[in-house]
Amino acid sequence: MKLLYPTSLKLDTQSIEGFSVELQAYDVAEPIPEEHIDAEILVTWANKPGPLKDAAGRMKKLRWIQSLAAGPNDVINAGFDVGKSVLLTTGSGLHDFTVAEHALGMLLNAARRFYEMREYQVRGQWPGHLGGPQPDRPADRFATLRDARVLIWGYGNIAKKLAPHLTLLGATVKGVARHAGVREGTEVYSEDRLPELLPQTDALVMILPGSESTRHALSAERLRLLPRHAWVVNVGRGSSVDEAALADALDEGRIGGAALDVFETEPLPEGDRLYRTKNLVLSPHAAGGRPQGAEALIADNLRRFIAGQQLRNKL
Amino acid sequence: MKLLYPTSLKLDTQSIEGFSVELQAYDVAEPIPEEHIDAEILVTWANKPGPLKDAAGRMKKLRWIQSLAAGPNDVINAGFDVGKSVLLTTGSGLHDFTVAEHALGMLLNAARRFYEMREYQVRGQWPGHLGGPQPDRPADRFATLRDARVLIWGYGNIAKKLAPHLTLLGATVKGVARHAGVREGTEVYSEDRLPELLPQTDALVMILPGSESTRHALSAERLRLLPRHAWVVNVGRGSSVDEAALADALDEGRIGGAALDVFETEPLPEGDRLYRTKNLVLSPHAAGGRPQGAEALIADNLRRFIAGQQLRNKL
Repeated sequence: MKLLYPTSLKLDTQSIEGFSVELQAYDVAEPIPEEHIDAEILVTWANKPGPLKDAAGRMKKLRWIQSLAAGPNDVINAGFDVGKSVLLTTGSGLHDFTVAEHALGMLLNAARRFYEMREYQVRGQWPGHLGGPQPDRPADRFATLRDARVLIWGYGNIAKKLAPHLTLLGATVKGVARHAGVREGTEVYSEDRLPELLPQTDALVMILPGSESTRHALSAERLRLLPRHAWVVNVGRGSSVDEAALADALDEGRIGGAALDVFETEPLPEGDRLYRTKNLVLSPHAAGGRPQGAEALIADNLRRFIAGQQLRNKL
Repeated sequence: MKLLYPTSLKLDTQSIEGFSVELQAYDVAEPIPEEHIDAEILVTWANKPGPLKDAAGRMKKLRWIQSLAAGPNDVINAGFDVGKSVLLTTGSGLHDFTVAEHALGMLLNAARRFYEMREYQVRGQWPGHLGGPQPDRPADRFATLRDARVLIWGYGNIAKKLAPHLTLLGATVKGVARHAGVREGTEVYSEDRLPELLPQTDALVMILPGSESTRHALSAERLRLLPRHAWVVNVGRGSSVDEAALADALDEGRIGGAALDVFETEPLPEGDRLYRTKNLVLSPHAAGGRPQGAEALIADNLRRFIAGQQLRNKL
């Protein structure tokens, strides 16, 4: 059996040795070389669309693709026979820490207004109104995580990583997910409770996956339920937010601000309104993108694959 | 006995009732009214220099000043008979949480390069090089708190609040203070160990008080000991950093960056080189400035004062 692993990230291949499997490196920017086109297993990360489409057409013996992305849209769109002759497993879990860290940074950027300080600095001005004596925990502003009410919509593994940081900062964390329940001490509600939850939210963190069912989940109607000072942070998928409605809410001062790491179209097109929307903080899909623990996932799934067991992160 | 409290912040005066003390509000922007000039106790916060100097000359019965600032330079400079007829206690401890939160935000701003993203956004450009697939924990950049080596110089109560957040993010935290020892699980070294510690530091957090002995503690010589990718964060006092040497180090790319909340001169004068120094992130003395728990400190010290006991936070 042959496994192809990408050179687009540093992998400690020693950690996936020990199976009766031939390990071969490949370049994600080039077509798979003819001598490796017989591989049964393909690990993907940051593959170029052209060569990936080419691989979908040429790799006739392929049985399993291990993507290291949490949402492997590139593989799905490349034309592999996913779900039929080809099994697809995702990199879910490899990005939990990095996305949580970024989300925490975005929340603090919003609360402490580092983005606004930067604008002043660029103009050579001292942002005096943001320093010196300040009111402590004002009710009409999101100015600290202490005593802030944070609602995490899409309460999965990333949220579980993020919540302890927020709690340690003194925030009250609640979650929203398809299934209600208590997860590691955090109360998670079903989506039908949003009409009660949104009006009591100082910061809404969106970590929804991209799919038809989550499209424009944060709609104009739901945006209207947030308090005037509330911030929206999105580190899930851009499609889950109605961007036009969000920009309207921001321009009209109906919410406090938004920090977005994901967009309906990426890169955000030149001249897009969002670049200049008031209190909108842009991050270029930078939250994840650094898989951690990929070797352990590959090795575990490789063992399961050979043993004929159920694989982890099956799409 | 009469205590004057300032209206420059919201105080829950009910929490300091119950003593045989008359509580009177005063405006920090105006001279103390004649009928209250006989007060023995003065609580200060964000007082204007003129009226404070006036109070120093006129309050002949004053015996104790409770400042709510961590470093009450305003009181010291106003001309009160501090240390002789007038006792001065500080607001040390009231700013631990807020400064720690700000320092955490600055570290994440540096690691996740939100400041650079903002510059691109202001220009209407997508900062593509900061997003998408990235190397995980590169040795030559400060890109995450995970596995980062953070050195906190000035390891007091603020540092004790900050350290757990960094540890939870996966950083290794060490401290430097006048007295070595283990504080709440963190190894704290004396300053003579800096030559060994600085070269092993990814992020140096300065929380030194302002005094002659800390002046330019971070000197040109010590800056040269930091790795090329290291960041400097200062939330202590501006005088503890040799700003000219820091700007040289940044301009020459000898360190990774610096996030400063405090400066040798505040506000930083218009046209100052630091506004445009490469990878320098400016925050306008915004870390603290929001006392938390002031009432409990005032009440406790008031009880001690009446009982003739040692006061807390005596300067």
